[in-house]
Amino acid sequence: MSEAVRIVDADVHNTYASANELLPYLPEPHKSRMADGGIGYPGSGYYSVVGVLRRDAIPPKGGPAGSDPDTIRTQLLDAYGIDYAVLTGGGILGVSNLTDPDYACAIASAYNDWLIDRWLPLDPRFRGALVVSTTDPEQAAREIDRVGPHPQMVEVLMGSGQPRLLGQRYFHPIYEAAERNNLPVAIHPGTEGAGIANPPTPAGYPTNYIGWHTCLSLNFAAHIVSLVCDGVFSKYPNLKFLCVEGGVSWLAPLMWRLDKNYKALRSDTPWLTRMPSEYIKDHVRLTTQPIEEPEDPRDLLRMFEIIEAERTLLYSSDYPHWDFDHPHTAFPPGMSAQLKRRVMAENAIELYGLPATRPNVKPAAARVNGSRADGSVAVASGKAPDPGE
Amino acid sequence: MSEAVRIVDADVHNTYASANELLPYLPEPHKSRMADGGIGYPGSGYYSVVGVLRRDAIPPKGGPAGSDPDTIRTQLLDAYGIDYAVLTGGGILGVSNLTDPDYACAIASAYNDWLIDRWLPLDPRFRGALVVSTTDPEQAAREIDRVGPHPQMVEVLMGSGQPRLLGQRYFHPIYEAAERNNLPVAIHPGTEGAGIANPPTPAGYPTNYIGWHTCLSLNFAAHIVSLVCDGVFSKYPNLKFLCVEGGVSWLAPLMWRLDKNYKALRSDTPWLTRMPSEYIKDHVRLTTQPIEEPEDPRDLLRMFEIIEAERTLLYSSDYPHWDFDHPHTAFPPGMSAQLKRRVMAENAIELYGLPATRPNVKPAAARVNGSRADGSVAVASGKAPDPGE
Repeated sequence: MSEAVRIVDADVHNTYASANELLPYLPEPHKSRMADGGIGYPGSGYYSVVGVLRRDAIPPKGGPAGSDPDTIRTQLLDAYGIDYAVLTGGGILGVSNLTDPDYACAIASAYNDWLIDRWLPLDPRFRGALVVSTTDPEQAAREIDRVGPHPQMVEVLMGSGQPRLLGQRYFHPIYEAAERNNLPVAIHPGTEGAGIANPPTPAGYPTNYIGWHTCLSLNFAAHIVSLVCDGVFSKYPNLKFLCVEGGVSWLAPLMWRLDKNYKALRSDTPWLTRMPSEYIKDHVRLTTQPIEEPEDPRDLLRMFEIIEAERTLLYSSDYPHWDFDHPHTAFPPGMSAQLKRRVMAENAIELYGLPATRPNVKPAAARVNGSRADGSVAVASGKAPDPGE
Repeated sequence: MSEAVRIVDADVHNTYASANELLPYLPEPHKSRMADGGIGYPGSGYYSVVGVLRRDAIPPKGGPAGSDPDTIRTQLLDAYGIDYAVLTGGGILGVSNLTDPDYACAIASAYNDWLIDRWLPLDPRFRGALVVSTTDPEQAAREIDRVGPHPQMVEVLMGSGQPRLLGQRYFHPIYEAAERNNLPVAIHPGTEGAGIANPPTPAGYPTNYIGWHTCLSLNFAAHIVSLVCDGVFSKYPNLKFLCVEGGVSWLAPLMWRLDKNYKALRSDTPWLTRMPSEYIKDHVRLTTQPIEEPEDPRDLLRMFEIIEAERTLLYSSDYPHWDFDHPHTAFPPGMSAQLKRRVMAENAIELYGLPATRPNVKPAAARVNGSRADGSVAVASGKAPDPGE
């Protein structure tokens, strides 16, 4: 049982069946507020007719997709041979879009306690993303110190929808705490345009979901430029920053443009001693989903080469979201076995400090609720399909 | 004298020596306002230590770079064998960032009259960009009808710094007028974050000039997504849209992401009957400067292939700005002679409806002020260097 890890999934959306599950973890007065009015996240108002969640991921016993650990285990982890999965929550990132930082930070803490209590003990494959609200970076830093040492917590997670660029000094206490706890900082989209976040583009609000979703990458690009140019990676040399669900291929032309500008404008950024793209490749990591699908798949392979995917790219499925990427079919033909190993597992093992060997997982049939609604049973600890197949 | 056009420069920044040159073209009360307070454009507050204008482009007789037609003729057109140059103004795009639409539209009209009066008659190589203020699209449409028929006016130009995405219905009267006058609509950056424009990124204001300048492409990307998804090219099937000075290579991954999303989310955009990238390649054109400079120049050539540069890309120098691109050295080796002809001249000839042959230009020595400060004389109508050399 010391087989090498096959697949790490860097973005799996678990959630509560009801937000009321957080109530026992909330202190007053926040508990009464939430009990009375719900969490009360501001929305961005975008609607997709295809839905945000896979309809086939609704648990057999009911509740929202992602709310039943057993369905995640059988439908995702067992079925695809995923050895570790980072649980990134469902909707919780709205804690950075609220006006009241005390309430927002209390919700984030309650979520982290709920995650530690209700999910992480259930399966040795589960890993946790520690959620912070950026509305009060000092409180966020204390939250990182509080729950960051938990052995299954592998990253600090915050929404990319922000009123400020993430490189700016306002956010630095979060990076200092993350570096101190040896945790990467991850951002995830979905809150762009909601509450105190900025409009989702440099010219306001897209009209519809397709425009909003397509432009999410632009926000990631702006944050990366800011992280480099505001000197975050110079100030926190051990910090790693993970872009989750923001796309991949935009990074190559962004590095070209930023490096070219740096040659002329480097006096703006005296804290940089190397080309901006060097900082990006050393400090920034990206998850694969939603991976771009150029007409000629060799173009994607070339993008992988340019961004040095063998050290920067981590597989993610985004389960149970509508645009789920299957680990065995989402990628173009022509990836070397070495590159596949790096993307599917090794980059994540290094970033998160995961064991290099597969965990010991009970067969699904031996677990409580281990069987699927259709009666099928998947076995996780057996031979899983090769990611490249 | 029926030699084929060699180079068309799609972005040359002329300007007034003093904004007071516009006063004779302004009606009251706008004339008194400007005489008293200057044009009064709101600024974005970004500063670059290298400056925005080439110091060697200051005219021998003084005044700002770009303010002397003769310097533009000798230092740019004669020196590089440029046969047609689109004059895009200097700073005039701030007319879309003012709060008062009547004043803003009056300034735009005065600028257009000044351009027609003071510049276009001077040289057969000069072509004009008709500037509109987007603060009142109906007035902008009337301005297009008023000056669009001038034989040397070749495009409608507006700032990309906007409070709204350019595909949205608010702007449609401008597109209708442009299509009616058979003129492409061009956008140009520089006003991002100023006045009524949105902050320059989806997460607010970059800290410094390098961050602001690098992120200008993101705004262009957002506008292109909007133009396609809001149906502008379905509604105005003969409209062409030109992205000036916004970069080039970002378009390829943007098309991949948008096409992929369209496959799932096409019900958001029932007016589209083809893939979004098809609309982009049919309707969107880009100028080259500032061209990306990847470490391996073949990556730029591949970007050219993907965006179908042989029909979408137009050379521009951005003279006299700091990041000027030399027509003979800015491009990577390996471009075919055919692609060079398309980019350096033919795409512009088709877009602007220019003559296919070089204009008859007086030798510099025969012109008033035809000699350079250093005594050198360039001859424009002789054999110019081949753009590919």
